[in-house]
Amino acid sequence: MSQTFAPDVNRANCPSRQILEHVTSRWGVLVLAALLDRSYRFSELRRHVGGVSEKMLAQTLQALERDGFVHRDAQPVIPPRVDYSLTPLGQDVAVQVHALAHWVESKVPDVQQANTTYDART
Amino acid sequence: MSQTFAPDVNRANCPSRQILEHVTSRWGVLVLAALLDRSYRFSELRRHVGGVSEKMLAQTLQALERDGFVHRDAQPVIPPRVDYSLTPLGQDVAVQVHALAHWVESKVPDVQQANTTYDART
Repeated sequence: MSQTFAPDVNRANCPSRQILEHVTSRWGVLVLAALLDRSYRFSELRRHVGGVSEKMLAQTLQALERDGFVHRDAQPVIPPRVDYSLTPLGQDVAVQVHALAHWVESKVPDVQQANTTYDART
Repeated sequence: MSQTFAPDVNRANCPSRQILEHVTSRWGVLVLAALLDRSYRFSELRRHVGGVSEKMLAQTLQALERDGFVHRDAQPVIPPRVDYSLTPLGQDVAVQVHALAHWVESKVPDVQQANTTYDART
């Protein structure tokens, strides 16, 4: 048996922890949210997600592919063409992180106000 | 004017990036999800969230308090008693990250299967 307990993110060694970290990582969230709209080639995705390095984008995509969230489609053409898209499981999680990212964007003024209040008090 | 563009998480220097990182950080997610049920004292919260160090929990709570998601209530008693709870804004985001964490827990078998398939192929 590979699993004795029901998954619980509050347990330090639960495998759900690592999955949660892949989908909530700085770049994981943004990659999943981007792929919700359409498939992307690597270079397109790198332009879309501002500030991500080639290395971090490759690591992020690989972790998401290994977890079954992202499908990598390498076309046998010259020059090589690789497209990334969401699997059905990836679609499920991308909807959630996209909604979260959008919510955060909508609350920037509230958070900036809270920051100002906090900084004035401390 | 403190803000010229509409917030966009895909822009590297957008303030929404930092907020998103606070609520999706390893410990941020778990702290917000825990506080959805009830308020916690620091030491209780540390026991609830497996593996968090005192330092990381303090930093996480401070960032969430500064962003207006967590309310810190220090009682003037001896020994000192500090309770942490969600603000209405924090409640909004905690509902989302709690749902995400719960979804991840429910998908552990699917992801483990995907890991196995991926590792056999590479």
